[in-house]
Amino acid sequence: MSALSAVPAENMRTLWFDESDQKVCFIDQTHLPHQLIIRTLDSLSDAVSAIVDMQVRGAPLIGITAAFGLWRALQQDPEDLESSSKTLLATRPTAINLHWALSRMVNGLRDVPAAQRAPRALVLARALLAEDAAACGAIGDHGYRILQDLLAAKRQRDGDQAVLNILTHCNAGWLATGGWGTALAPIYKAHLAGLPVHVWVDETRPRNQGASLTTWELARSGVPHTLIVDNAGGHLMQHAQVDVCLVGSDRTTAQGDVCNKIGTYLKALAAFDNQVPFYVALPSSTIDFECVDGVREIPIEERSADEVRQVQGALAGESQSGQVSVQKVAITPASTAVSNYGFDVTPARLVSGLITELGVFDASRAGLMSIREQLDIESGVAESA
Amino acid sequence: MSALSAVPAENMRTLWFDESDQKVCFIDQTHLPHQLIIRTLDSLSDAVSAIVDMQVRGAPLIGITAAFGLWRALQQDPEDLESSSKTLLATRPTAINLHWALSRMVNGLRDVPAAQRAPRALVLARALLAEDAAACGAIGDHGYRILQDLLAAKRQRDGDQAVLNILTHCNAGWLATGGWGTALAPIYKAHLAGLPVHVWVDETRPRNQGASLTTWELARSGVPHTLIVDNAGGHLMQHAQVDVCLVGSDRTTAQGDVCNKIGTYLKALAAFDNQVPFYVALPSSTIDFECVDGVREIPIEERSADEVRQVQGALAGESQSGQVSVQKVAITPASTAVSNYGFDVTPARLVSGLITELGVFDASRAGLMSIREQLDIESGVAESA
Repeated sequence: MSALSAVPAENMRTLWFDESDQKVCFIDQTHLPHQLIIRTLDSLSDAVSAIVDMQVRGAPLIGITAAFGLWRALQQDPEDLESSSKTLLATRPTAINLHWALSRMVNGLRDVPAAQRAPRALVLARALLAEDAAACGAIGDHGYRILQDLLAAKRQRDGDQAVLNILTHCNAGWLATGGWGTALAPIYKAHLAGLPVHVWVDETRPRNQGASLTTWELARSGVPHTLIVDNAGGHLMQHAQVDVCLVGSDRTTAQGDVCNKIGTYLKALAAFDNQVPFYVALPSSTIDFECVDGVREIPIEERSADEVRQVQGALAGESQSGQVSVQKVAITPASTAVSNYGFDVTPARLVSGLITELGVFDASRAGLMSIREQLDIESGVAESA
Repeated sequence: MSALSAVPAENMRTLWFDESDQKVCFIDQTHLPHQLIIRTLDSLSDAVSAIVDMQVRGAPLIGITAAFGLWRALQQDPEDLESSSKTLLATRPTAINLHWALSRMVNGLRDVPAAQRAPRALVLARALLAEDAAACGAIGDHGYRILQDLLAAKRQRDGDQAVLNILTHCNAGWLATGGWGTALAPIYKAHLAGLPVHVWVDETRPRNQGASLTTWELARSGVPHTLIVDNAGGHLMQHAQVDVCLVGSDRTTAQGDVCNKIGTYLKALAAFDNQVPFYVALPSSTIDFECVDGVREIPIEERSADEVRQVQGALAGESQSGQVSVQKVAITPASTAVSNYGFDVTPARLVSGLITELGVFDASRAGLMSIREQLDIESGVAESA
């Protein structure tokens, strides 16, 4: 995996296929917001380390990255379909997209002759990327209408100068997907349409995806936003400073439970306690129809203690090379015991609705059944076409 | 304010009067857990900056510090009672103890002849320190019985090997009080009595009092503990990993609402949602009987944006002097807008009980009335004695 110089990425694309070089490029998110570093994904092991080290993260994006990783593996050895797929599947346990994307790839490649597997894998991976971007765009359109309605109601109450305040947790923007984002897609669409929106960005400890990625994304697009610590959202909701919460999902169950970045559940409780709508935006690829009770059934990833003990940031001043010096500092001795679960589950009862590419659905068995029926119809249409 | 070398503090004392030097010494908490630095409080401005810069923090401790600051002011100018008191009162707005301690001092000094004011102020400040330590000891005893009962019930359910898991937020230990602590006092008493306890320590962004201070305190006393991010408590409670929450209070209202470090409310919601008892430990000096509705009435301090943007920690390796190099790193550019409220209010309905030096009371108007009656009886006894 080579590190290119800081070439500006395509707008709202964190991973793309470069036609001229025939290479997959991606933003290495571990250096943001301090440095914009673009890397290329040249092998299976590049894909594995990009996912494990969280150079790429976000449920849809890790699925996409795995698909391109499989292409690179098949270029090396076209017979290596199952074992490479297993290696990629083992990188992270919680997000279901990895499983979804790899199943789609393996099903689409199993019966393809070895000589044609690698080029076919590239076609499939690129289709997956394009579909995710399109799904996120549709999520943005459906979610935009919710924000529009909430703003209209707020204007009726508070006058025409009202601004819609949206709280989000972690990063569910274009850095996490094929494009647009999930939770941030409706916000971008609203901002582009001229709706006055303001985003409260949870910093999202321990990896600070809100502070590092979401603020960076929103600043690039000129969306007004304010960074807060994860502890602050409850207070803001008690004081009517939040009109709606909008988050992503790493896995959504057949009864509408939502597994997302650790701390999401606490915000959902505060939203419920203060009658603030709490929406989850997700492509249908994050739904696990095999899973019902999210709290009991979803495996929650435990990550390194050093993610909590150490914080990465820029040292004051510039280094001798004129570059920002990015360093880690230890907030606690290495001897301090740490527990570091990456996700939690928000029960469906706390979720106002699921914003998908197919429309907005109840977070309930009935809602998920409607999604499934619509997916079945579409795949039937696709097959008969 | 002179910085002494790293002299070990008296056990479980963060501020003390040194008889031999006739000086007030305190641990400068802004350097923990990396460096133990003891300072002396030699003037009114030392006291003001110690409180404003959070070298001392915690509701009881800032009251005590202000009392000793008033002593130093009266040594300079015995007529300066009211204006020095106002200066100290303005240092921090949320904790009521500052008001309580200064009122007690001013009331006890107003009618004292100028020449005797400074020595009398020292007597009163030392009494306040001793009383707070005694109150915290009593809180520890009352809270210990709650932990004992919870452990007995858990042992009946899970067997004799059961360990009681306690979650705490911020630092409400001896670093925050005259001794013992508030929320940590019952934990120390339980640990000393041989009860198997384990503490989940919220790191408590943005200032990381849990990661910096609570883990340091608990490690010194050998109390088993695990550091977690503030986002994690809800997940742990969903999975029965927390038996009881125990936090402190910066101001408690006449109906039992509890104002405490930002994020406390989110943990109380999760505790309520998972039937985990949620207790608040406080000396009666943190009760504001003039205040009823905490969410509406308590002024919430807003602090510097840089507390969120920058994180302090130890750089890897040692500096040339052989000392740990403590540095700040910026997690986000200086241009990022930040909101930084220091406290939130947990409504009484979410509080299982208030552990005070007088016993355990309901977090309700009736409970607070009982506390008031008991305080009135004790002050009547004190006056007639």
